[in-house]
This record gives sequence, structure tokens and C-alpha cells, in this order.
Amino acid sequence: MNRTLDPADWSPLRSLGHQMLDDIFDHLASLREQPAWQPMPAAVRAALREPLPRDAQGPDAAYADFLENVLPYRNGNLGPRFWGWVQGNGTPVGMLADFLASAMNPHLAGFDHAPALVEQQVIDWLVELMGMPSGASGVLTSGGTVANLIGLAVARQAKCGFDVREDGMQSEHPLLTVYCSTEAHGWARRAMEVLGLGNRALRRVAVDAELRMDVDALREAIAADRAKGARPICVIATAGTVNTGAIDDLVRIANLCAEENLWFHVDGAFGALARLAPSLADRVRGMERADSLAFDLHKWGYLPFEVGCALVRDPELHKATFELKGRYLDPTDRGVIAGGLPFAERGLELTRGFKALKVWMSFKAHGVDAIAELIEQNVAQAAYLAKRIEEHPELALTAPVALNVVCFRYVPGDDAANREILMRVQEEGIAVPSSTVAGGHYSIRCAITNHRSRLEDFDLLVEAVVRIGRSL
Amino acid sequence: MNRTLDPADWSPLRSLGHQMLDDIFDHLASLREQPAWQPMPAAVRAALREPLPRDAQGPDAAYADFLENVLPYRNGNLGPRFWGWVQGNGTPVGMLADFLASAMNPHLAGFDHAPALVEQQVIDWLVELMGMPSGASGVLTSGGTVANLIGLAVARQAKCGFDVREDGMQSEHPLLTVYCSTEAHGWARRAMEVLGLGNRALRRVAVDAELRMDVDALREAIAADRAKGARPICVIATAGTVNTGAIDDLVRIANLCAEENLWFHVDGAFGALARLAPSLADRVRGMERADSLAFDLHKWGYLPFEVGCALVRDPELHKATFELKGRYLDPTDRGVIAGGLPFAERGLELTRGFKALKVWMSFKAHGVDAIAELIEQNVAQAAYLAKRIEEHPELALTAPVALNVVCFRYVPGDDAANREILMRVQEEGIAVPSSTVAGGHYSIRCAITNHRSRLEDFDLLVEAVVRIGRSL
Repeated sequence: MNRTLDPADWSPLRSLGHQMLDDIFDHLASLREQPAWQPMPAAVRAALREPLPRDAQGPDAAYADFLENVLPYRNGNLGPRFWGWVQGNGTPVGMLADFLASAMNPHLAGFDHAPALVEQQVIDWLVELMGMPSGASGVLTSGGTVANLIGLAVARQAKCGFDVREDGMQSEHPLLTVYCSTEAHGWARRAMEVLGLGNRALRRVAVDAELRMDVDALREAIAADRAKGARPICVIATAGTVNTGAIDDLVRIANLCAEENLWFHVDGAFGALARLAPSLADRVRGMERADSLAFDLHKWGYLPFEVGCALVRDPELHKATFELKGRYLDPTDRGVIAGGLPFAERGLELTRGFKALKVWMSFKAHGVDAIAELIEQNVAQAAYLAKRIEEHPELALTAPVALNVVCFRYVPGDDAANREILMRVQEEGIAVPSSTVAGGHYSIRCAITNHRSRLEDFDLLVEAVVRIGRSL
Repeated sequence: MNRTLDPADWSPLRSLGHQMLDDIFDHLASLREQPAWQPMPAAVRAALREPLPRDAQGPDAAYADFLENVLPYRNGNLGPRFWGWVQGNGTPVGMLADFLASAMNPHLAGFDHAPALVEQQVIDWLVELMGMPSGASGVLTSGGTVANLIGLAVARQAKCGFDVREDGMQSEHPLLTVYCSTEAHGWARRAMEVLGLGNRALRRVAVDAELRMDVDALREAIAADRAKGARPICVIATAGTVNTGAIDDLVRIANLCAEENLWFHVDGAFGALARLAPSLADRVRGMERADSLAFDLHKWGYLPFEVGCALVRDPELHKATFELKGRYLDPTDRGVIAGGLPFAERGLELTRGFKALKVWMSFKAHGVDAIAELIEQNVAQAAYLAKRIEEHPELALTAPVALNVVCFRYVPGDDAANREILMRVQEEGIAVPSSTVAGGHYSIRCAITNHRSRLEDFDLLVEAVVRIGRSL
């Protein structure tokens, strides 16, 4: 009756832990010498289709399997030449904080314990950094999609005009409509679907030559919907589109939302972090007026997955959207549950882990200014890459470089050739850009949220693209 | 232009990592000697309201702050006498796996890399363990709420009778209704609200003396709704209610769902894991017939937060609910994105961390049979505690003990006295049960999902409750 998953003798597992730590530090310190990505051999694929382990193999054997079949076959985002799909690298400090968070294993619904104070402190810091008013509400999330979904859920609660928690979208009501640009991220469609608003009610407004939402077209779309009896509730502006990094005119959209009594939600998945850097803050001006703002710390905050954040200007509305009741939740000002479960009343989850610790340790260890300098460095690197492309007769940009995303193509090649170039750049282990369609062309796309990149890494990419292009 | 968040010299951070590891192993090895919980001094609360750190304090200082102000003030769930709110302890192996996962930091939308194969392997193992058909679909989640929400979203997609992704709940349609028992967990209300179904459409069916859903009453409720023109879509059965651990009659409910063409969703947040143990599997018989099943690995799987799982019998329906499109998602059979983003098409998130690694390493290191034995041990411990309570003239059970949850009270005391007893048990650092209302009484509740508990821990609780009760 006294079995446990703790070891009877802690020494061997402790030694294994030290071995893991040394192996991982060796791995991280040598990233620059490793391939940017490598395909898995068939033997690895076969090894990872093992039957269910009913019997113990022991931690050493499990770790040996990890070392042989898992660690070498990464998706590449740790390395200095990964610029695909807007993924961060993670950091050594963030990794150690994740270890400590898992060791402590606290439950972050709320409760009266230090981790809850750490999360609240992190939220207060983020409120300050984003220029939201002191006392604004917030919660850390798995990432941008859930953070954005939370913002849209509060918007629905605030502006729908009926009791949506009680009646759902199942009472008779005018069509609720939401607005974003044609460049908005796929989360918007998913959130509309999940929330029962539906894809059809998401109005995709045209963009200008800079790929920013056309605010006149937005105004017309709202008026047209009102004329048809619909009830516009929310505008989703984007600070840093996933395709090209374009930033909507947040000030004009904020003004329009104020005039039209609409919820102003900003998706700043990576772009919001630009506000940390004095030289870049002006590019996202107006964002601080958001009713709700969503962004990630695991993209341009460089932290390991998963950690995003939703901020909501009005804490009462935030709570009104997710407040919960239950007999096993006994409100009291004493004991472990003193203070209630505030974080569980700001989003989807009741059980929540200690994501806050890596933000807290990273901000303290590095200082926010150092993170801001790296964001500036990535923007400068994007400008450097763009300049190299513009100067090269065989390369061309396919979209304006608004921030840290560079879309380009090998001009002598068609779409198929550019795709082939991208595949070979990845398969040869040189670098990991991704692709998009920009300016009507299949484009190689570098989204630079990488604290390990150096200028020479971009030179290497340019040379490889030209070399492979010419060889085709 | 070559700044980074990596250290210039890796040695000091590596040493700090080794120090952290030793400190944490010391902490874990001495849990039994530590208070079950302790309130935070004012100085700690003040220290955790530090201004935004613009400048670097360095990793050593940040860690010193963690050691002093965070680690000692846990919510208690690591320890051997924590039985509150159904929280697991976490395990040393799980913690090391979380470290490795954060170090690798892969992006689990999909992609062609070993972590994606690890997640798919874990899902296949869980499909097998839960008795779902081979080829059933699944995805790891932050926990039970999101896993359950995914199940209900697929139910809505499958049974609504209109194009809910395109039209949302905003087209004209019969009222969609969902059924659960009055003992179902609060997630059901939240998911109804989020999905736009609304709390009003959640029919709470009465329970029998064992606190299981009254299936005749369920049948009547469905018929009554149909008679009024509503469209019943889904029954939510619970395998292990949060209040008392009651298990609905899954076989009868599965039969009823088949007859009535309703989606059969099972919330097995902790109870589903009982299926791993041969002596307990029969208690959750019928669960394997679920159209969708949600459960946690961070409760009765003992793993650190966060990791839950949603399984869906029909993989096509699962994908149809969450399939995504986007220009930056370039389907190809080559390069990093070969195979697409399957996990992002099974739930809410696009960016997803490597939760699968701790399940994979834990199953391999310990073997599933060892986890099953611990689940059996917890059920035997609940029976032991129940017996001690029944034998004690001053104590009484307030609900049947169906599995691993024991609800009881100090009989000479009223509700206020029992709450006072619970507070003192926590404040004196003896143990952390939580509370509920059961059998009409405020009750002390032990939800035993703890791999560190021994029989002597339950003796200690019984003695403390009686001692404090008498002292009042």
C-alpha cells in the first residue's frame, strides 16, 4: 500500500538528471554547428512506433531512446538559421524556469500561494509594457489563438446585446458581425467558428498597398452591415501580420471603434512586443487603446512554448465573461483557496500550469531592455536581408518589409522553382525559411524572431538561394 | 548585431542548472518532512510585487529570489497529504521530461520531426488503453476543460444539422440541447457558453442515490425536448464526478445515445484512468463506446501540469471540426512541413508545446502497469479512509465512495464547525483536503490522486479532524 513513482533511492535519478543537463547544455552550445534541420531515417520512424510499454524500462533506457531517436530530429527552431512560421528559439533561462515550474507543479487556477502572485506580477508587468491602464486584467495562455479567442469572447459578451452566457447564440438576435483584414491570421476564423459566430460573420476588409487594413473600406463594411440589420460588435486589428509583418493603422481603427461603439481587439501575436523597443514603439501606436490585446511570449519574447497572454482593459467585463460557480469551489479568505480562483475566471482552463515562471525569471535575469534590444536587432536584420535582396539582380522582395518579416523570390525561377529552392535549403540543412504567397508570387518567407541569428546567417541564405536557383 | 540570450560563457549557467537540480531533488526527497501547506508572510507578498525589471539582475539573483520567495510557498499538491480539488503531484521523471521538452522546444502543430511522432505514439497508446478502435483520433490538451470542449465541439459539428463552421449558431435552427447530470463538472457550462450553445440548453438530469445520472429521467428529458421542437445533440456522461467520484451508467447511456442518434461524450477527467487497472476497469465499462472521451494525465496519470487528452472515435469528424486553411500553410510532402499540421487540426491551438514527452517517458520509464497499480492503491486508500470514518463514532461519510473520493464530516459539529476544522487542518500544515456539499452537508472531501500518500497519512487526517472538532 506504500508504492510511489518516486525512486526508492534518489541518487541514480539525480545522476541521470545531471547527465541530461550536461547533454542539453552541450547540445545548445553547439547549435551553430548542427544542421538547421534533417529528415528522419526510416529506422527512427520505426523506433517511434513502439508497442505500449506495460513494463518498466527504467528512466535510463527511456532517456537513451530520447537521445537516439528524438533529440537529433528537431523541427529546427532552436537553431540560428530558423525563420519559419514565426517560432521562437526558447532560451536557456526559460528552459531552466520550465524545469523549476514542473518541479513545483503548482495549480494556477488561483489559490493562496506564491506562484499565483508571480503570475499576477507578470501580468501587471505586461500591462505596463503594453501601455494598458493599471488594473487592466490579464491571463497567460497556451498561445495566441487562445489569447485572441479570449479577447473575442469578451467582445461578444460586451457587445452582443443579450445574455449570451445563458442563451448562447440560440436566441433570436441580429446577426453579430466582426471585422478584420484579408491579411488577418487564421485564428480569427477558428475563434469565430468555436464561439458560434461563424465564418460568414467575419468580414474580411481589403488591404492597401502596404497590406494594412483599408479603414475607409472598414467603415463602409460596418455601415453596409448596419443597413442590413446586422449588429457589428468588434474590429480585429493586427499588429504584425503573419504573412508580411504589416501593422494596421491602429490609431485610426481605435478612433473608428470609439465612434461606432465597437470592441477594439488587437492581435499582436508577435508584433505587440515591438512596443518594448523605443525605436519601434511608434509603429504599434494605438495598440495601447485596445479593449483586448493578445500576444505571445514564445515568439518575440523568445521564451520556450507555451506562453501567450490576453489583456483586457475592463477587468469586470473580463470576469463577467468567464466567472464560474461550483459546489467544490468554496470561496473563503482562509486556507489554500483564499482569494478564490481568479485565473480560472479569465479564460478557458480551470487547471493551469506555472507558465508565468519563465516570463518572471527571463525578465529578471535578462532585463526587459535586453529583450527589447534583441527585437530591434531582428528588425535591423530584416532590413539587412531586404537590402541584400534588393541589391541582388536575381532576387526581389514580394512584399514591403514592415517589421521583421521578409518575403522574396528568385526572379529567374517560377513558383515551382522557388518552392524547389526552399525545399533544398531546408533539406540541405542550411536554413529553415517557410513560404507564403505575396505580391501574387510563391515567396520564400523569413519571419525573424530568433535571438541566435547573426548577419552572416542571412548572407548564407542569400548565397544558397542564388546557388540553388542557378542550378535548376 | 550579434547579441543573444545565450550566455557568452556557458559554464556559470550550467553550474547554476546543476545547483537547481540538486536543490530540487533535495526538496522532493524531503516533502514528507515539510508542512502540507503554509501561508505566505507579508514580506513574501511584498517581495512578489517588484517593479518591472528593465535591467538584468542575472540568473543567479533571479534564482535566489525563487528559492526564497516562491519555492517554499506551494499550494501543497506535491506533498503526501494533499487530497484537494483533484490535483496530481507530478513525478520526478515527468519533471525531467518537461525539462527536456523545454530544451528541445519543438512546435507541435505537426511538422516532420521526431516530437510529432512521439505525440502520435502517445495518442495511439492512449487509444489502446481506453479501448477505442485503432485509428481513432486524438490530441493532447492543456487539460480536461479544453479536452471536453473539443469533444463537445465535434458533437456540435456532427449533430447540429447545419453548417455550423460557416453560419455559426446564427442561422435559423431548432434549439440544440445537451444533457448531463446535476453532478457534472463546471466545464460543461463553460463549454456550452463558449460554443454559443448557452447554459440554458444544458439540461441537468437528476441523479440517483449513488449520484449517477438517472437514465430514465434522461430519456424523458430528451423526449420532452424533442416534443417542444428542440434538437438534442449530445449526452455528457461522467466517469468519476468531481464531487464524489460517482460513475454514470455508461453502458445504458451508450445504448440510449445509439437509439436516439445522439453524440456520446464521456468526461473521464480522472476516472477514465481507472480503466488501466484490471480490478477497476469494469467500473467504467461502456466508456470505450464513447464518440469522444476527455481525460487528464496530470491527475490520475500523476504527471506534472499541463497535459490532458481528447480522443475522438471518428477521425474524419474530428478533422472536419478543426481543419484549417491559410496561405502560410503550404502543404507539401517535403521539408519541415511535410505531413502538414495534423495536431493543429484537432483542437484550438496552432502553436503547441511538447506535452507528449512526459507521457512518453513516464510510460516507458515506469511502465503502464505501475501507474495502474498506483491507481488501485489510491482506490484502496479511499476504502481504508472510508472504513476508518465509518468506524469512528464522531465521523460520518456524506456520500457513497465510488472510486477515490471520500466526503465526510465531523458529526457533532455543524457546517460552520466542519469548515473551521478544514481550515485548521490546512493552516496547521497537516493536510490539504478540500470541501464540497454532499448529502446536504458541508463536507470535508479527499480526492485521492496522490502517488506519495501512505496509509499513515490518512490516520493522521482522521486524528486531526477529531482532535480539532473536539476542541471547538
